[in-house]
Amino acid sequence: MNIDEIIEGISRKDSRSISRAISIFEDELLADKAEELIRKLYPKTGKAHVIGITGPPGVGKSTMIGRVSGFMAEEGRKPGVLAIDASSPYSRGAFLGNRVRMQESLGEKGIYMRSLTNRGFKGGLSLSALGACKVLDAAGFDPIIVETVGSGQADLDIMSVAHTVAVILAPGLGDEIQAIKAGMMEIGDLFIVNKIDREGAFIAMKEIQDTLALGPQDKWVKPVLGLNSLTGEGFQEFIAELDRHWEYVNTRGDGKARLQGEVALIMESIFRKSLERLMSDEGGAMETLRRVYSREIDPYMAAELLMEYGIHDPARSTRLK
Amino acid sequence: MNIDEIIEGISRKDSRSISRAISIFEDELLADKAEELIRKLYPKTGKAHVIGITGPPGVGKSTMIGRVSGFMAEEGRKPGVLAIDASSPYSRGAFLGNRVRMQESLGEKGIYMRSLTNRGFKGGLSLSALGACKVLDAAGFDPIIVETVGSGQADLDIMSVAHTVAVILAPGLGDEIQAIKAGMMEIGDLFIVNKIDREGAFIAMKEIQDTLALGPQDKWVKPVLGLNSLTGEGFQEFIAELDRHWEYVNTRGDGKARLQGEVALIMESIFRKSLERLMSDEGGAMETLRRVYSREIDPYMAAELLMEYGIHDPARSTRLK
Repeated sequence: MNIDEIIEGISRKDSRSISRAISIFEDELLADKAEELIRKLYPKTGKAHVIGITGPPGVGKSTMIGRVSGFMAEEGRKPGVLAIDASSPYSRGAFLGNRVRMQESLGEKGIYMRSLTNRGFKGGLSLSALGACKVLDAAGFDPIIVETVGSGQADLDIMSVAHTVAVILAPGLGDEIQAIKAGMMEIGDLFIVNKIDREGAFIAMKEIQDTLALGPQDKWVKPVLGLNSLTGEGFQEFIAELDRHWEYVNTRGDGKARLQGEVALIMESIFRKSLERLMSDEGGAMETLRRVYSREIDPYMAAELLMEYGIHDPARSTRLK
Repeated sequence: MNIDEIIEGISRKDSRSISRAISIFEDELLADKAEELIRKLYPKTGKAHVIGITGPPGVGKSTMIGRVSGFMAEEGRKPGVLAIDASSPYSRGAFLGNRVRMQESLGEKGIYMRSLTNRGFKGGLSLSALGACKVLDAAGFDPIIVETVGSGQADLDIMSVAHTVAVILAPGLGDEIQAIKAGMMEIGDLFIVNKIDREGAFIAMKEIQDTLALGPQDKWVKPVLGLNSLTGEGFQEFIAELDRHWEYVNTRGDGKARLQGEVALIMESIFRKSLERLMSDEGGAMETLRRVYSREIDPYMAAELLMEYGIHDPARSTRLK
């Protein structure tokens, strides 16, 4: 299948084409194809609500996402789920079993579910997630639910592809949770305490509300909701809040502002590619670094000299002319 | 104090000048001064062994660093300690009390200790840490111990300023630790299990060794050590392994390769500054984003158009001519 065939398949909602397209974003060696795919798909996109769901391990994200996408499918929506694995090569595979089971049970309800990983360079996974969202958007899925496992900066970065971010926590995760959840307070639009039947759940909700009150106050007051993935309690309210936030994003007239993140992500990927190229350059880079090492020049001068070589891909610049 | 006075003070090991210099790196508004400081200090640096110490909350990093720097001071070395706070504005201050107590007790032994934070943009903290290391290096501190609290990508990124990275863990941190420590396996040169007297400590050491065996094998075989910060058990071996790794870094003839990270960090900071400028540009950026929003152009085209404006600071480019 070439890119045009894949794009034609995506328009028909052909699952083989969709899977093939998403796989392209997992392989750093196919970066040029990935770019071509995003560029060609772009005019067909822009309809889907992208919902990011993040939270530390052990809070029950996968089960919750299974339930919420199930309820949405029952309402006649066409949810697609992307589960992003930002874990290191050392722990890769740990979540796989769980994912396979989830994929099977969602597939029966007509919900598309796919895991996404990236063996490439730092920051590459955000771009892969962005690309996979464009594929599902062009295929007519709406909403697109993007789940990140884990709790690092990489997970938070990936959330920049979402219109709405729901942070999920659970009672009784211990003291470590204080540090882990730090970066999550900024990025969350909604906060969920899962396993609401457990001891400490209402205290956890109260703690989140208190922490939010310390932060900057926006026109959007961040709701804190309780869920029980076993009984389904709280899910209708959760879906209503997701819709209300999507409405909010679309009506406050700054949909364009959300694009800043998208374009910045792509600029970063172009920059990182150039950086890798410059740093691996046996000619200029090594000679420049030798001059820094001998203290002949300082590292700012080195950075400037290397950037003069061109942060653009030379092949790319000509395309603009 | 102007920059030249500060630099003169640093050479005299004047603690007021050192503190003032490090504060410059904490304030994003002083980015130009920070650059000037790094450039002017650079010729006076390159002697100190920079040791990064990282690990999840609750493993006893601060106490361990207090002990190891104390032992080093007794041997006649001049350790400096930088404790980096990558936490969000929501949790800021949580670690402060602990830090103030640590600063007082180390100060009595002639050990310089300083906390470092950064209220600025993403990625800024790594550059601040780099700058603060240059200040301590120029002031004659050796080794420089850089501690990060927390466990996110930001913490791992900061470790790129270190020559040797020690990852510290403790027994009994629960399942979450599996996910948290993922990124740490790659960056660690040494692994420490603290609280070696606790139940499960030897199992934890064995688990780390098993996990390391799954990763790429290098000429440097990563040691796994046990420590007891209360009794001092294991500290002489820890210091010997730190020295052995520094020897290894210096003799394998690729000291220059370590500079790649340093220069790349500075290039990233220049890039991010340009990105912020381009994205906040009410003229070009907004018009370009509007064209993406209306699907007239795709985001790659937008990225290229914006980068044509110049990823360099125009004021900066002329300096090279």
